[in-house]
Amino acid sequence: MERETMTEAEEFLAVARAAKDATTVLAPLPRAPKDAALHAIADALVAATGEIVTANAADVERARRNGTSESMIDRLRLDAGRVEKIAAAVRQVADLPDPIGEVVRGSTLPNGLELRQVRVPLGVIGIIYEGRPNVTVDAAVLCLKSGNAVLLRGSSSAHSSNTVLVRIMQEALEGTEVPAGAVQLVPGVTRESVKHLLRARGLVDVLIPRGGASLIKSVVEESAVPVIETGVGNCHVYVDVDADVDMALKILINAKAQRPSVCNAAETFLVHADIADAFVPKALAALKDVGVTVHGDERIRSYGADVEPATEDDFTVEYVSLDIAAAVVDSLDEAVAHIRRYGSAHTDAIVTRSQAAARRFVATVDSAAVAVNASTRFTDGGEFGFGAEIGISTQKLHARGPMGLPELTSTKWIYTGDGHVRL
Amino acid sequence: MERETMTEAEEFLAVARAAKDATTVLAPLPRAPKDAALHAIADALVAATGEIVTANAADVERARRNGTSESMIDRLRLDAGRVEKIAAAVRQVADLPDPIGEVVRGSTLPNGLELRQVRVPLGVIGIIYEGRPNVTVDAAVLCLKSGNAVLLRGSSSAHSSNTVLVRIMQEALEGTEVPAGAVQLVPGVTRESVKHLLRARGLVDVLIPRGGASLIKSVVEESAVPVIETGVGNCHVYVDVDADVDMALKILINAKAQRPSVCNAAETFLVHADIADAFVPKALAALKDVGVTVHGDERIRSYGADVEPATEDDFTVEYVSLDIAAAVVDSLDEAVAHIRRYGSAHTDAIVTRSQAAARRFVATVDSAAVAVNASTRFTDGGEFGFGAEIGISTQKLHARGPMGLPELTSTKWIYTGDGHVRL
Repeated sequence: MERETMTEAEEFLAVARAAKDATTVLAPLPRAPKDAALHAIADALVAATGEIVTANAADVERARRNGTSESMIDRLRLDAGRVEKIAAAVRQVADLPDPIGEVVRGSTLPNGLELRQVRVPLGVIGIIYEGRPNVTVDAAVLCLKSGNAVLLRGSSSAHSSNTVLVRIMQEALEGTEVPAGAVQLVPGVTRESVKHLLRARGLVDVLIPRGGASLIKSVVEESAVPVIETGVGNCHVYVDVDADVDMALKILINAKAQRPSVCNAAETFLVHADIADAFVPKALAALKDVGVTVHGDERIRSYGADVEPATEDDFTVEYVSLDIAAAVVDSLDEAVAHIRRYGSAHTDAIVTRSQAAARRFVATVDSAAVAVNASTRFTDGGEFGFGAEIGISTQKLHARGPMGLPELTSTKWIYTGDGHVRL
Repeated sequence: MERETMTEAEEFLAVARAAKDATTVLAPLPRAPKDAALHAIADALVAATGEIVTANAADVERARRNGTSESMIDRLRLDAGRVEKIAAAVRQVADLPDPIGEVVRGSTLPNGLELRQVRVPLGVIGIIYEGRPNVTVDAAVLCLKSGNAVLLRGSSSAHSSNTVLVRIMQEALEGTEVPAGAVQLVPGVTRESVKHLLRARGLVDVLIPRGGASLIKSVVEESAVPVIETGVGNCHVYVDVDADVDMALKILINAKAQRPSVCNAAETFLVHADIADAFVPKALAALKDVGVTVHGDERIRSYGADVEPATEDDFTVEYVSLDIAAAVVDSLDEAVAHIRRYGSAHTDAIVTRSQAAARRFVATVDSAAVAVNASTRFTDGGEFGFGAEIGISTQKLHARGPMGLPELTSTKWIYTGDGHVRL
């Protein structure tokens, strides 16, 4: 079949099958050839810097014509320095330990069967992501390092950049033991083209959507392929009656304002009623100093004239901006109930001197991460020492919290006998 | 709202919310009160033997009127001895270690933050299962032991039994620290009533369908709730050129005929061409002796007049009967390609004296379990030493192979500092 005459669905099937075929060679590879392939990719990216920057300039120009915000354009833009950084990140992934082949459990059964559970690749991973071309390379090499083929579906805004980046990675793999087919760009730039991925059960083993809440929700609801939900963070800081007020202020300001655009930034703070007089006026002043608008319930508003009234939406939304919702609660349990009701089960923090309060908060908050006397901003693969991160799972199945290389694997049971049969 | 005026959808929401509410009390419970609750259930079941057997008799009578097969009726039937066995199994689960609270990983980060990843319950688990009332109790207590609430959706054929069993378990929980709402029967007996479960995202954390392939497929395709796929087993025995023929015969007969109705029974055998003359005639005779019908490709049929011709369907189907498909292959890689194409990624076995062949088979067969010189029948939570099993996962996400108590859990990251903020 000529490429020109293929429909988008046929093109998708062709690349998905190529990825699946690549897994038969890639999955059993030990570490050395995978690391060599990653270094080949890093070298090829640096060598092709001019071509990458030119392709990226077309994306940037189109984004500018479309009136895209400067902050979005900044995430989209590549220059020689950024290409060098992407290549350096690839070499860092090569330096990480290979999760594949790890013996997770093992024993000799009473009948003499030798049993072991060994870490293996998932197979083909589909990544649906935002307009950041560095993710194209980051995600691809994390998948390759963990023995997986990858289907990349980036934002249409980065399509020129992604097309060139994927071609350079494929060409770099030609000279290695990793099949070039293991890295694939999903054809098409329309929202419809994402649907091919969602229906590819049997060809794709897992989908990881990143980016906006509405995209993630639609993937989760429509996909026949198993999904790992990532990234939406409506994180809370609860200031307990036994909190150290200065510590609470420091943590609240850091959690909200140190980098408000990320998923582990705080979006709501809750204060115990009995410490509200001591804490809230100072918190409102400190938040105002760093440019944060507070959306408070009636009790919070009684402490400050410039507090906006909070609606249900304010407690639900992930602002990702210099805004924060706030409420006074009468007990720790009321704080936990608020978090269970409005939170996104990403990261929630308590500030308290009380062991009993910390213990109860940790036990009853049902989130991927719970912080005690620390900023929510630490929920991060880099901070946790993973060396790399593909996203932060907010679901309970398979992986929860920051996902590094081991979270991109499954396991296989192997048992060896000498003619063992069931009696 | 009066119960009589509720629609089935409203009734479903009421029980699902009751289960979710129960998790706030159940999830943080330590082992002792959970074990006490399991013993209370075991005692209550034995005490209510008469009532259980009477309710079950109504199911059996209805099944008989509907012309259900005797083997299905046998799986449905309860008598005093079987109730005692169910209660004994509950006490065994109480004796198993509690997976909750296990510290899976942990470290002190360079900045002094104390980080640990702790095993926690999944939350609310929905189980969709076949007409075996013992599963109602088995599944419920495995969920409770692992800190989860459970929504039980058994076969309509066991509805009278299941209704009584669930009521007895709920009543038994009334006197314990485990909330009675943690065990719920999904209202309704129609196929439509299953759909409420599939749509209950946010209320139900995971669905585990057991039973027939078509039910599992429809759950997987339609569910908005994450699913763990279980149980379909199209298992293979590959007899390598370097096989010990007597060992291969013993393993093949055991894998096929020791208990043909289970998912880890073999459904196809593959033979290397260079050992076919030595192996196939003996295999056909031995299979005939135990009443197995062979469905072979042309090369297999050249060894026996009573071999049925195999179609594509024969290589795809899970017979769950005294039938087996068979084919001759020209290489180990051709055997692996056959298994990848037709298999269900449950369990596949190789019989060989060759280390190299075993190593290549294990590395390239992409199944939940791979057996070397052993029957496929060992893929089982009991055989693996798990003490109990909720099913056998044939998917790669979250759990793969036999699922015991740890597979019914998630994890939570906890980090503790003394005012730590990101710099």
